[in-house]
Amino acid sequence: MMTVGFIGLGSMGMPMACNLLARGFALRGFDVRRESVAALEVRGGRGADSAAAAAEGADALVLMVVNAAQAESVLFAQGALDRLPDGATVILMATCPPDAVAALAARVEAAGRRFVDAPVSGGTVGAVAGTLSIMAAAPAAVVERVRPVLAAMGDKVFHVGEAPGQGATVKTVNQLLCGVHIAVVAEAFSLAAKAGVDLAVLLEIMSGSAASSWMLKDRGPRMLEAEPGITSAVDIFVKDLGIVLEAGRGAKAALPLAAVAHQMFLSASGRGEGTMDDSQVIRSYHLLNGVTPG
Amino acid sequence: MMTVGFIGLGSMGMPMACNLLARGFALRGFDVRRESVAALEVRGGRGADSAAAAAEGADALVLMVVNAAQAESVLFAQGALDRLPDGATVILMATCPPDAVAALAARVEAAGRRFVDAPVSGGTVGAVAGTLSIMAAAPAAVVERVRPVLAAMGDKVFHVGEAPGQGATVKTVNQLLCGVHIAVVAEAFSLAAKAGVDLAVLLEIMSGSAASSWMLKDRGPRMLEAEPGITSAVDIFVKDLGIVLEAGRGAKAALPLAAVAHQMFLSASGRGEGTMDDSQVIRSYHLLNGVTPG
Repeated sequence: MMTVGFIGLGSMGMPMACNLLARGFALRGFDVRRESVAALEVRGGRGADSAAAAAEGADALVLMVVNAAQAESVLFAQGALDRLPDGATVILMATCPPDAVAALAARVEAAGRRFVDAPVSGGTVGAVAGTLSIMAAAPAAVVERVRPVLAAMGDKVFHVGEAPGQGATVKTVNQLLCGVHIAVVAEAFSLAAKAGVDLAVLLEIMSGSAASSWMLKDRGPRMLEAEPGITSAVDIFVKDLGIVLEAGRGAKAALPLAAVAHQMFLSASGRGEGTMDDSQVIRSYHLLNGVTPG
Repeated sequence: MMTVGFIGLGSMGMPMACNLLARGFALRGFDVRRESVAALEVRGGRGADSAAAAAEGADALVLMVVNAAQAESVLFAQGALDRLPDGATVILMATCPPDAVAALAARVEAAGRRFVDAPVSGGTVGAVAGTLSIMAAAPAAVVERVRPVLAAMGDKVFHVGEAPGQGATVKTVNQLLCGVHIAVVAEAFSLAAKAGVDLAVLLEIMSGSAASSWMLKDRGPRMLEAEPGITSAVDIFVKDLGIVLEAGRGAKAALPLAAVAHQMFLSASGRGEGTMDDSQVIRSYHLLNGVTPG
């Protein structure tokens, strides 16, 4: 059985690490929060007191950190890459811009290690259940070496390309669609509200028509509430649509709808509403258009 | 049984008129194309040689014309309203801007007739099957008087508001969502194509994720074809998103995503591609971003 180093034991990383333990992998984990490392030990994992110690002798090193800058710091400044055996595989699962992923991959491969770009979707629910979608990009043989590791965390492992960065691109496309879908529901509902249309009736009709989307059915009902519970925050889309636009700059691709949607989330954040449920991007439209929600 | 006048026997209007005949309504139909009137007579309806003759003595007058200007011409310049008995009901089912509908309703009501704003969705398939969604706006008692007429054409009759124009608003919102959903799939796929991602794999992943929409599943596969069959043309969304933006101007509501999406369909039309399948709006993105589809 392979030995896995795991860096980043947050709301996604901890349940992913636990699923690796449950499948029998020898796992050593690290997080900058000491209490997270202690929690892993309670769950049967081995804790490490540094990123480098977690990487020591591992066959695969999973990075579930916040962003590309943290991944770079862990691998290089904090010395994890040096402690990883020759031929071991770095698996980057955080959501990062495609260009940054490709650059990290090149440096890791130049140092004689393998690299799999493997972002996920499915949220904490999927992380706990082991039902994440994993969008893996690397040469097929490299993906196959670590497929058991990936399959322990997600039940849908897609090989989306040979070049690291292509997994990040697929994740980026996913977030582009999700973010614009939320914003356009808000745009449509704000127009309807201004015309005095009952939004509950509107939502019922749209949910059953060609105008429907996963986000319409999920976020639409919460747009009709003044203070909905927080399922995912406005600031997540400020970040993720920011990555989308960075991917567009990297690929030199104009993304006009994504750019507009980003502005609407950004303005919500600018009003101090970044921690609200992301359905509340509708407030940006209501303010823009002078709508008083009924 | 009520007597129904029916103006506009096109690809939608003809099957709608036939469903009224099948339910036993006495129907007199008119279209500027003589052959359409003749076809109605073959199907058991009575033909009229003018809009005014179709309206003569009818309890309800259905307008399934191309736009608001045609509806106005039929009612006023062509004299249909004068021939309609006092208290009879005009049912406007064409897709029109909300303000234009409200203005027509006011003139009809000032002349002592009733008015129901009742646009439809469901396309020719729904028109033939009698399964249209009908978004009716008028005082409840006015809608109830003609409910049997509406129910003969659509199995989902929603009462969306008391004021004519609100039905048009709901239809507008529907088209706003549909148009932006198509354009954003094209935007996302064009980015992925530029990054060298396999679009068939991408489509499979997105169809099963939170990024999914009715349009992604319907138009997405056709975006991967170079010359797909035409289900609905680019120029339909040039027109319908134009109505959306006119509705926004009428309500004084900024609709930035709809405005951007409209530009992408408009540019496709400007290249002479207006009669292509609307999935081909992806060509606007490919040209914009220098993508050669693989």
